[in-house]
Amino acid sequence: MAATSLVLDGPAGAPLQEQLAEALRGAILAGRLAPGTRLLSTRALSEQLDLSRNTVLNAYARLLAEGYLVGHTGSGTYVARELPERHASVRRAASRGPARGLEAEPPALSRRGAALAAVPAPFDLARGIPPGRMAFRLGVPALDAFPSELWGRLLHTRWRRSWGDLLSWAPPAGHPPLRRAIADYLATSRGVRCVPEQVLIVSGSQQAMSLAAQVLMDPGDAAWVEDPGYFATLGALTAAGATAVPVPVDAEGLDVEAGLRLRPDAKLAFVTPAHQFPLGVVMSPRRRQALLAWAARAKAWVLEDDYDSEFRYVGRPLPALQGRIPDARVLYTGTFSKVVAPSLRVGYLVVPEALVDAFAAARGFAGLSSPVLEQAVLADFLTQGHFNRHVRRMRVLYAARQDALVEAARRELKGLVDVEPTHTGMHLTGWLPEGVDDRAASARAAQAGLLAFPLSQFRLESRGRGALMLGYSPVPEEQMDDSVARLARALR
Amino acid sequence: MAATSLVLDGPAGAPLQEQLAEALRGAILAGRLAPGTRLLSTRALSEQLDLSRNTVLNAYARLLAEGYLVGHTGSGTYVARELPERHASVRRAASRGPARGLEAEPPALSRRGAALAAVPAPFDLARGIPPGRMAFRLGVPALDAFPSELWGRLLHTRWRRSWGDLLSWAPPAGHPPLRRAIADYLATSRGVRCVPEQVLIVSGSQQAMSLAAQVLMDPGDAAWVEDPGYFATLGALTAAGATAVPVPVDAEGLDVEAGLRLRPDAKLAFVTPAHQFPLGVVMSPRRRQALLAWAARAKAWVLEDDYDSEFRYVGRPLPALQGRIPDARVLYTGTFSKVVAPSLRVGYLVVPEALVDAFAAARGFAGLSSPVLEQAVLADFLTQGHFNRHVRRMRVLYAARQDALVEAARRELKGLVDVEPTHTGMHLTGWLPEGVDDRAASARAAQAGLLAFPLSQFRLESRGRGALMLGYSPVPEEQMDDSVARLARALR
Repeated sequence: MAATSLVLDGPAGAPLQEQLAEALRGAILAGRLAPGTRLLSTRALSEQLDLSRNTVLNAYARLLAEGYLVGHTGSGTYVARELPERHASVRRAASRGPARGLEAEPPALSRRGAALAAVPAPFDLARGIPPGRMAFRLGVPALDAFPSELWGRLLHTRWRRSWGDLLSWAPPAGHPPLRRAIADYLATSRGVRCVPEQVLIVSGSQQAMSLAAQVLMDPGDAAWVEDPGYFATLGALTAAGATAVPVPVDAEGLDVEAGLRLRPDAKLAFVTPAHQFPLGVVMSPRRRQALLAWAARAKAWVLEDDYDSEFRYVGRPLPALQGRIPDARVLYTGTFSKVVAPSLRVGYLVVPEALVDAFAAARGFAGLSSPVLEQAVLADFLTQGHFNRHVRRMRVLYAARQDALVEAARRELKGLVDVEPTHTGMHLTGWLPEGVDDRAASARAAQAGLLAFPLSQFRLESRGRGALMLGYSPVPEEQMDDSVARLARALR
Repeated sequence: MAATSLVLDGPAGAPLQEQLAEALRGAILAGRLAPGTRLLSTRALSEQLDLSRNTVLNAYARLLAEGYLVGHTGSGTYVARELPERHASVRRAASRGPARGLEAEPPALSRRGAALAAVPAPFDLARGIPPGRMAFRLGVPALDAFPSELWGRLLHTRWRRSWGDLLSWAPPAGHPPLRRAIADYLATSRGVRCVPEQVLIVSGSQQAMSLAAQVLMDPGDAAWVEDPGYFATLGALTAAGATAVPVPVDAEGLDVEAGLRLRPDAKLAFVTPAHQFPLGVVMSPRRRQALLAWAARAKAWVLEDDYDSEFRYVGRPLPALQGRIPDARVLYTGTFSKVVAPSLRVGYLVVPEALVDAFAAARGFAGLSSPVLEQAVLADFLTQGHFNRHVRRMRVLYAARQDALVEAARRELKGLVDVEPTHTGMHLTGWLPEGVDDRAASARAAQAGLLAFPLSQFRLESRGRGALMLGYSPVPEEQMDDSVARLARALR
């Protein structure tokens, strides 16, 4: 295969690895890469195409997972002899996107639909996890410590007391008592400047991103995204016809200077200043300043995703970027998925007053409103003081779980995985020795029943040392030693 | 004011009435129409601009509601002396859409965001209704007959029995037991051809529209929408950057020939074949045939919204369009909002197998998934036979409520409102005498505490006799006479 015959002209907003996967998939489906063909090594292809090796590795990994490629240890990667049946129609349609006009039949999906189907979906990974096999799943709270009796009581009482009020629609912006309770909480705990009217109830930060992309961006506009970062952002941008611009993250958080070099005219920046996802760094005051200055100058917006800042174990958390200066061009989002439970599908988005009506309209047109019962019970949970108690309990629990992880890792994972304790969050970054492929390490961990996502899965164009993301929040202390020992055996 | 100085170049997808409202708003904000100016009569302006009088009436009504205009009975319509403060910033931003480049500051919203904020939002109307004042609210079930004790018991049992399974995410496509139960129900009751894997759980038909527009359309593509029709469709299309093409509805449903004349290259058609919303007609077999033939020929898609077909009082309902022929290019959506309760926010979207992955991805990127508890309890409600019993009970109840309405109307509303009984649904169309303005009639009814939407609110470009939409489902039989008598007094 002449690598130069691959044209990377994939859908707007798709990262290079997706464009490469798409181009390879298209070549396979069109027969330009015949079944059984041996592909170039990832190293050789990355040199020929002048792409990072990670980009090529990720593209190969995706096609291996989809069944277009097969790998034989020690002998390379080959085009599968049997092409995947199940996804064939969707994929074939998807592959038409860029090649439109060359085929007799128009595509089943629009170009945007095909691009959406091709964005890697993190939420696929969230399902079907057998109980007791949650180590080291990222972003899952300690569901073993969920106050189920209390919640059941609140549910029962709320239903009995006011079922008549719980049957009709909530306003698109959300159940008013919950909006008030959240505004109080954010002002007190996170230094967010807001009145209840600015708080919109959304199904979580994913919906917040999706709405922000719709309301603040036009097709073709660019948004800065952190690299490595939460890649479902790409889905929200693709749905809005917008383009993701990966901006590197360093020890101070998003590199604003790099963003300015890449796309000073971006309309939106997605950031996680309190605890960068997934690296865990805190955005420095200098960078916060620079980011706000850029937004003010460029009349752009910042979407601050404060996804797990409740869990700060040492000292007081840095207040939200949103509250740093008056009239900052910042939208603020958070979720109860991490602090209470993912199944609630309740999060919030705080927007400037001038934008409230437009966001409420977009929320309504995307699916009216969130279910009322969850919102009402959550409002009770907050206003009756249970939420603050729960957060305090979880903070103690997670600190102990992190300690247990660090201790066990120092004992068992020496030379295999390097972890440093942090002051915030629900996971640690477990650095692998230079040159070790984190996808392969993650696959070995998975065979041992452990869900440790590879850092490179969150990389778009950045390169760097491999790591396993170790979520400690769902692992009970008494299971930590065993889980770490299993990881050590899997990696050895 | 020279009417010809108004340029209708509003956002794509916005109906003429919105474009006119936008142009007038812009002229007012820019000072081209000074405070206190008397506007042309709706008749004179409609003639000058060659628009239907309804279009002009609707634009004036919107600006009156927003406070840009004030009306003095008998003396015409004037530009308000005090412009509205509350919406000023959003509206001002919105008004920049078409005038981009003429102002110093870039807009706070994207052009799409401004267009979204300008689409009339039907869901604003759903909130804040005092109990006992539901006459004649459209699309609300008999919440007074909701089986609250049974539902509370199911909720309690499901939580106690399996709270551990109800805390994590549902897959984006939905809770599997609910998908199975819905597939069974649709196959048996509606003749829908599907397996559970084709059923996606959505928050309602609004989300179904929003996803269909994203997955099946690219920016600039056109979709046929029924006129009169459910206007929130426009919001879903605007969010996707797509264009709505109003297609007239007659006694046989959507006029497919007219659609072919207007935009044969449309990618999608939104239809309500079982019971056209809001007119209530059933799409004829001939038209169904023509619609499917167009979709097959044009490789377009039909989104069938089967929003209230459970309520058929005489004979068997016509099976769904989706199941009419194998491999029809039809997506099928329905909701539990009308059959169970709006607050659940659970509906379904049945898509061809080849599209499942793309729709699940779009659903995920729009906000992951729906809350699990509602889905699990609803699955119990369906599989334990409660749902079928509930539908049968509601059918008897609604038939009786419709009878009561028709009887009272014949007695009290002679010469004021003309109603004909129908075999399906939850509302009747109450035709007003020729020449009577249905918005004014609706406003008078509202003053009497009655929510009877004017038909013209659902019109895009069509003209025709005015009517009040009379939802009988939420009005208990014993309150019907009084409600109808109040309406008669209000209209007399």
